[in-house]
Amino acid sequence: MTRLEEQIHFILEVDKLKNIIRQNYLADGSRKEDDADHSWHLALMCAILSEYATEKIDVLKTMTMVLIHDIVEIDAGDTYAYDRKAHDTKRQREVAAADRIFRLLPTDQAEKMRTLWEEFEEGITPEAKFAITLDRMQPVLLNAGSDGRSWKEHQVRLSQILGRNETTHEGSEILWEYELGLINKNVESGNIMDDAEE
Amino acid sequence: MTRLEEQIHFILEVDKLKNIIRQNYLADGSRKEDDADHSWHLALMCAILSEYATEKIDVLKTMTMVLIHDIVEIDAGDTYAYDRKAHDTKRQREVAAADRIFRLLPTDQAEKMRTLWEEFEEGITPEAKFAITLDRMQPVLLNAGSDGRSWKEHQVRLSQILGRNETTHEGSEILWEYELGLINKNVESGNIMDDAEE
Repeated sequence: MTRLEEQIHFILEVDKLKNIIRQNYLADGSRKEDDADHSWHLALMCAILSEYATEKIDVLKTMTMVLIHDIVEIDAGDTYAYDRKAHDTKRQREVAAADRIFRLLPTDQAEKMRTLWEEFEEGITPEAKFAITLDRMQPVLLNAGSDGRSWKEHQVRLSQILGRNETTHEGSEILWEYELGLINKNVESGNIMDDAEE
Repeated sequence: MTRLEEQIHFILEVDKLKNIIRQNYLADGSRKEDDADHSWHLALMCAILSEYATEKIDVLKTMTMVLIHDIVEIDAGDTYAYDRKAHDTKRQREVAAADRIFRLLPTDQAEKMRTLWEEFEEGITPEAKFAITLDRMQPVLLNAGSDGRSWKEHQVRLSQILGRNETTHEGSEILWEYELGLINKNVESGNIMDDAEE
């Protein structure tokens, strides 16, 4: 295969991301969103909200990171944030997927994209921290928009959401503060179970 | 509203792009893709294929352009590339949509995004030309992948596709050459009607 043929092969393979369905609904509650929808939304949020990043970020790098951050789910599937059992094998399944899918690209691009995905997973650099902030905030925006539909369906507890958002503030204190306000509002309305009261 | 509240309002409003369904199918033919899926795919193609741009492009600018290029369809709807009647009113409907949707953003960002959308529409700058090349090439890749399903459903003729792709080569001769190869293959297999023979 030529370089271009390898690139097109990858581009057609990742079309499958549109068939990976997430647990959260669109803001209007009409259907669950797919991973490509979600990744598009994060990339656009990155363009609009980068001014709130705690540390200065490379916006193109962060945008590319969010565009590819879920591609491993083509093989590994979407692991629901609050499914503890599935999380035990998540890393192993996703590494195998990254090995297969990014390697479809020409070597230089395969390495670049694979590294970028690992950087997101590790969550240490300013770009990875901000990408994670967006990735955690976006479903909360949509859940709040659909009156907590997927929180209610899964009877999600406040402690689970706060655990999931342990590092969200690192990428942006301002965005985390906004997200926390939405979470608290949905605890008050009963969409999120307040397990501190138990 | 605070600046952040305006930005979040815009981010939630554009969630509706996920409900705008295009005419072309996913590469596996399972369903038609939505505009957010499509925009994600173009942004990722931009990251992978920018080396083929005829003129040097600002990749972040081009990526942002493709992320927002279809947002006007939230109000204006998806106008099928080969629906001549709908194209008569397309520009007017889309300008009204741009006025409404981009203005949800704080003034500086509203102006920036509105200008970027107009730049895409005009197709004159290197970034706009390359974005258009990707926008024309992507559905051809998917159509070819699904054995020409939407071409056959709409009985699309070669002259229509070539008309639609009149400027595709300007953004990248190499990508246009690849796309033309796919088109010709689908004329040979009968998925596209060869009206030169009529």
